Amino acid sequence: MNYKFQIIGGAKEIGGNMFLAMGPHENIVIDAGIQFPHDDAFGVNYLIPNFKLLPKITRLIITHGHEDHIGAVAHLKRLFPEIIIYAPRFAKCLAQKKLERASLVATINEYTDGDQIDLPDFFIEPVRVNHSIPDTFGLVLLPKNTDTALFYVSDFKYDEQSNFDPPIDLKKLSNYAKTKTQRILLADSTNILSRTTKTESETSLCESFESIFSENFPRIILTTFSSNIERIKNIADCARKQNRKAYVYGGSMFKYVNCAVESGLLQADDIKFLESKDQLGEPCVVIVSGCQGDFKGTFRRIAAGYDALFKPRVDDCFILSSRSIPGNEKKISMTLNKIAEYGCTIITSQERHVHVSGHAGKEDLKKVYHAFNPTQLIPIHGEHYFLNKHQLFSFDELPSSKAKVQVNFDSFEIKNEELIFSKHVPTDDERPILIHGNDIEIERDAIKQKRKIAENGIVLVNFRSEIVSTKNYALPISIQTLGLPAHLNSYHQHLVKNVINVLKSTHKASNDEIQAEVNSAVKTAINGILGYKPVVVTHIL
Amino acid sequence: MNYKFQIIGGAKEIGGNMFLAMGPHENIVIDAGIQFPHDDAFGVNYLIPNFKLLPKITRLIITHGHEDHIGAVAHLKRLFPEIIIYAPRFAKCLAQKKLERASLVATINEYTDGDQIDLPDFFIEPVRVNHSIPDTFGLVLLPKNTDTALFYVSDFKYDEQSNFDPPIDLKKLSNYAKTKTQRILLADSTNILSRTTKTESETSLCESFESIFSENFPRIILTTFSSNIERIKNIADCARKQNRKAYVYGGSMFKYVNCAVESGLLQADDIKFLESKDQLGEPCVVIVSGCQGDFKGTFRRIAAGYDALFKPRVDDCFILSSRSIPGNEKKISMTLNKIAEYGCTIITSQERHVHVSGHAGKEDLKKVYHAFNPTQLIPIHGEHYFLNKHQLFSFDELPSSKAKVQVNFDSFEIKNEELIFSKHVPTDDERPILIHGNDIEIERDAIKQKRKIAENGIVLVNFRSEIVSTKNYALPISIQTLGLPAHLNSYHQHLVKNVINVLKSTHKASNDEIQAEVNSAVKTAINGILGYKPVVVTHIL
Repeated sequence: MNYKFQIIGGAKEIGGNMFLAMGPHENIVIDAGIQFPHDDAFGVNYLIPNFKLLPKITRLIITHGHEDHIGAVAHLKRLFPEIIIYAPRFAKCLAQKKLERASLVATINEYTDGDQIDLPDFFIEPVRVNHSIPDTFGLVLLPKNTDTALFYVSDFKYDEQSNFDPPIDLKKLSNYAKTKTQRILLADSTNILSRTTKTESETSLCESFESIFSENFPRIILTTFSSNIERIKNIADCARKQNRKAYVYGGSMFKYVNCAVESGLLQADDIKFLESKDQLGEPCVVIVSGCQGDFKGTFRRIAAGYDALFKPRVDDCFILSSRSIPGNEKKISMTLNKIAEYGCTIITSQERHVHVSGHAGKEDLKKVYHAFNPTQLIPIHGEHYFLNKHQLFSFDELPSSKAKVQVNFDSFEIKNEELIFSKHVPTDDERPILIHGNDIEIERDAIKQKRKIAENGIVLVNFRSEIVSTKNYALPISIQTLGLPAHLNSYHQHLVKNVINVLKSTHKASNDEIQAEVNSAVKTAINGILGYKPVVVTHIL
Repeated sequence: MNYKFQIIGGAKEIGGNMFLAMGPHENIVIDAGIQFPHDDAFGVNYLIPNFKLLPKITRLIITHGHEDHIGAVAHLKRLFPEIIIYAPRFAKCLAQKKLERASLVATINEYTDGDQIDLPDFFIEPVRVNHSIPDTFGLVLLPKNTDTALFYVSDFKYDEQSNFDPPIDLKKLSNYAKTKTQRILLADSTNILSRTTKTESETSLCESFESIFSENFPRIILTTFSSNIERIKNIADCARKQNRKAYVYGGSMFKYVNCAVESGLLQADDIKFLESKDQLGEPCVVIVSGCQGDFKGTFRRIAAGYDALFKPRVDDCFILSSRSIPGNEKKISMTLNKIAEYGCTIITSQERHVHVSGHAGKEDLKKVYHAFNPTQLIPIHGEHYFLNKHQLFSFDELPSSKAKVQVNFDSFEIKNEELIFSKHVPTDDERPILIHGNDIEIERDAIKQKRKIAENGIVLVNFRSEIVSTKNYALPISIQTLGLPAHLNSYHQHLVKNVINVLKSTHKASNDEIQAEVNSAVKTAINGILGYKPVVVTHIL
């Protein structure tokens, strides 16, 4: 029996997680996540793994409800309409909403602790793990008729103190260590660079929350990740103990908390939904989304003074119960500066213990290492240099295991109980697909074009073909600039003269060729004035 | 005697430092810095404080050679050709080069420790401080005929172990505390949020450098800030002790190290300039600039494999002796991932002690607080929320002092030994000026236009006026898209039809009005297809 595995996304970037498992009868994927763009200036909403390169997929197993694991579910469903989907209850609710928004219908099969998903090629045994979203699972794949267990655990931490979810069942993992001779571990590399080796418990935050909530602020506005239901519950509990009302506020919070209630993770009276100003009693804690300073997030809207219910007041306290996701630092700073203008108090995780990670520190990794005792480690969920560091770490901590860095589209096979790795030569085709607007793909060339204009502006040159045919250079030549300095206006005549010179001297016959000559002359002329070349588009009508 | 002071830049952002001091006879400024743009997609090179709003300036006193203090010197000189400039020797060399590049000639007066600059309105006494560039000074301004000392110390740390520069002369500062009844302190807020309260010494890095240099790497490529001459010297010394050759490499490194040699801060044989491959001996340390992952930096060029002398090898070690300046995280990650692809070793300050800050931690601030014992504190060099935090900190640490948050263009006056603060209502005019290309200003509206195109693309519609006048709708209508998805191509006929419909139904007479109607119709049509509205520009010729 041959089995082949391929990481499609998430192994050389953070985000866009997808893992392909191919058996004799079918191909299945674990997770279908999106990646957020590096640069948000170019209107790209998100990136999805390049599904077009996938073989026919019959099943999708979702590990948890974060966007980097479920965000592309509608795209995958569209490409493989027959796909059968499996998810834990909370992720199911979130994925279902996503499919509905895309006008797609799918039944999602629910799985939980203790279940065994019996597929034609694999038994899949879910192992509950702690993470920053409830109802998260690692998956043990048992390829049928092999002596192999593959444990895919892309996002996890080990939280013994959580009063929400039990920690990973290490005993279960060590059973595989006893019963299977080949054990492949694909595990989280997110925090491999972190100096904090043991990821702290969600519960550890309660002390600071209670302490801050006991202070004299009439209103506390706290922003965190909407999917972190455990934290939201803890905050509400801490607020209650300090006689503060607790609310969630904003579309994203409502969506996640609603799913949590539907999934039985929260009780309806655990936390109130703030829907009108009259509802709001003080002292209070209002939990909002937008902790990354997103332009459309509730947090930024409040900070900027645009929110209908909240205008910042000098006696407000704002808590950022979050960390900056790399790339968002400036947006977050700008939001904090807005709040600072009102003189409000600001508390971030730099100063107080108001945030913990959802990912494994080195000590958390060791727990899984030692229980599962892999014969082969493959670091996942990390940028390329994270994966390398994870490999190095395992050399020290798991000397008996092999470790291999595999990046997207690399693959490995189980052949007669042997593991054979194939290095894949990356091509441009495999790069993730960029999605803009109504879930529509936008090509990299279009982004490149926009980047050129964004850098150096665009100049539109328009004239009638008669000017060429009749050599009447008195006919109007329109030169319009967009995104260029006003300084250039005084050179308008100079630019027109440049165009006329081209038309006078050109020996080209076709409009296309003349247009190209004009473009080039105008570019050069402007470069002489400004020191850079804009995009020039000439139309001869 | 009346004196008025105004912060022009650097108090609500990091960068663009400038402080205006107005006396009875003249107006002087301290520093003329630039700020780096938030978003580098729009071709803005840098921002300068809005000089246009300044009264006539006769003198510029430079505290040190960092770009956020000298970067705008040519712009200021152009506006005030008679300006007299003062600077410490190293900053003088750097500012001189900057003026030369802008084809400007100026004599810069050098000052150093123990000097007193005697101006018509002020005595200025420079106080040497430690910072991440040598030859940095705080300035004590003594307005004549007052009992006031104003200490402006925007960038500093307290480094007792430096073998390059002595720490701030606290005794000198405490003399002012004894002799002046009014003491105003404007001090660094950069690190006010940091958990590291005592900024560590540059010298403290030597242990890790030596330890890494003793390892088995044939080549170590280390990137740091080119202006940190003390670190470069220490690295070269550590390399020598470990029998490694040390080189600087790249344009920026050459410039700064050259100035350091010219200024007597380094000896010519302290470090070699790597100018050809033959020169390179192994084992070595090569110090390069580009630690922020800048696209044009030496570090990224090497990482990407484009450098003429260096191609990364698996046995190379790359050290980032730096921190990420907020906003650069992604660029740095991308560079590290490039290196990871080659399998090289990467060492960052997250894992090893290879970087220290150049700015005051809370303990450093306390040293100056207690020596100078200000009657009034004004936090500077920080974003708005940093300034607020610095104020709060001083309430605890300097209970006898007043503290006031002043942002750009706020002002204060000394009137009969009393301090009178004026809050300024910010206007759009004061915002820093954006510079692009050949030192030319680009207007915010132009950036806004480019941002719109960058987000949603641009569509060019062109047709002849005859189509309107003759109602011959068979005449060609050209619709060209730039930066839009290929998906839109299949709607070309649909868009043309939309244009024709507008032309058939319009009652407008002028081309401008018809163009506006066409723009709007095409926008709406595309929004229906893609879910977003591009910029549309229609030309009727």
